[in-house]
Amino acid sequence: MKEEQTNIRKLIIASTSTVHGGSYLSYILPRLQTFFAHTDEIVFIPYARPGGITHDAYTEIAAKGLASIGKKVVGLHRFPDPIRAIQNAKAVFTGGGNTFLLVKELYENGIMEPLKTAISGGLSYFGTSAGANITGVSMQTTNDMPIVYPPSFDTLGAVSFNINPHYLDPDTQSTHMGETREKRIAEFHKLNPQAVVGLREGSWLFVSGKSIILEGDLSARIFEQGKEAYELAGGSQLSFLEYAD
Amino acid sequence: MKEEQTNIRKLIIASTSTVHGGSYLSYILPRLQTFFAHTDEIVFIPYARPGGITHDAYTEIAAKGLASIGKKVVGLHRFPDPIRAIQNAKAVFTGGGNTFLLVKELYENGIMEPLKTAISGGLSYFGTSAGANITGVSMQTTNDMPIVYPPSFDTLGAVSFNINPHYLDPDTQSTHMGETREKRIAEFHKLNPQAVVGLREGSWLFVSGKSIILEGDLSARIFEQGKEAYELAGGSQLSFLEYAD
Repeated sequence: MKEEQTNIRKLIIASTSTVHGGSYLSYILPRLQTFFAHTDEIVFIPYARPGGITHDAYTEIAAKGLASIGKKVVGLHRFPDPIRAIQNAKAVFTGGGNTFLLVKELYENGIMEPLKTAISGGLSYFGTSAGANITGVSMQTTNDMPIVYPPSFDTLGAVSFNINPHYLDPDTQSTHMGETREKRIAEFHKLNPQAVVGLREGSWLFVSGKSIILEGDLSARIFEQGKEAYELAGGSQLSFLEYAD
Repeated sequence: MKEEQTNIRKLIIASTSTVHGGSYLSYILPRLQTFFAHTDEIVFIPYARPGGITHDAYTEIAAKGLASIGKKVVGLHRFPDPIRAIQNAKAVFTGGGNTFLLVKELYENGIMEPLKTAISGGLSYFGTSAGANITGVSMQTTNDMPIVYPPSFDTLGAVSFNINPHYLDPDTQSTHMGETREKRIAEFHKLNPQAVVGLREGSWLFVSGKSIILEGDLSARIFEQGKEAYELAGGSQLSFLEYAD
């Protein structure tokens, strides 16, 4: 993203839609009330279809979640011209589900580029899980299963690092021999340079122009190529990751 | 795979190279001694590069593992003509690591088709983890991170279902909101028809012609589109999955 575009971007990039014991979006609704204060209508991108539910059913869930803060939610699939809908939107929310499916649909519906352009033009963007993952340079640090083949792994690049949502610490009691999340990200860094932000459930990044603040009570785990992974506390400024070597 | 080809295939499709508390391949060496009795030399495909190690370093690990049963292991990357090496091989072992990387390298080195042809011609094939995953119709039930973009997700189709290696039961104590393995496979089945065999660590499939036996002490979890997932005990015949609707 070019510097003049970075100046006006506004995003909330959240690890999850739901924290354990909470209802859909409940933990983050007070924050969204401020974030979406400028508009009553939010365009919802339902393409990631968790559990394979329909676009309508998923939009209904999002609408119920955001009704309590007085927002009207309209599914992108309901617009006759979805590209124009993105161009005209004042706010967009992309829900979680399967990242491969989300990215495939964004490309096939011609939404990836218009969405990128709209975000760099100041559109307020909120994404959870898969919807958070796609704000990074690529979807290559998703945790999802490749249930469909997208035309590319490149995503919005609204921040110049990658996101690992639902970040999970290694289970030190486990006898399972599959790779831990940290090992997977280390393998990613053997072949890809960008930093990765491991966002724990209940954390989010608030991006406003050049500033990127880690919000929520938890720390995030930061992975930079060629360095040991490390923790950053809630409230930290993460903008330095955009200019990391 | 055509019926006359199915008649002479010979594979061991193993969930993992290493079980908890064991050394590399130790749990399966007695079985491999019989399986590889016809040859002293095994061609090793090191493309999946676990942890990003080099092809040479990975081949060295495989060579040490198989030395105790008197086998010589040669890395495919060491042959001047790897396609001919596959065509001339009496036995092939594909090690685990990252499935996306493995599949990309198989395509880019022109190995996928020759390997498929060799297996249907009676080549003895042994694969662990990612090397097991690719024996299925597609790599789409891998657990790995998409650290590189392969030209296709289609794989060997040496069996007409998919493999989920390192199959892991849901942790009923977990407060984590990410999808369980079973939920991920259910999402796969919303969009793909083939059955999925969830192979627990320490299990393998022995494929000999039309017969497919689950070996090892553990049960496997079977996922068929439109059915509840179910268990099959060690010793079960799984060939019926190839003709499932």
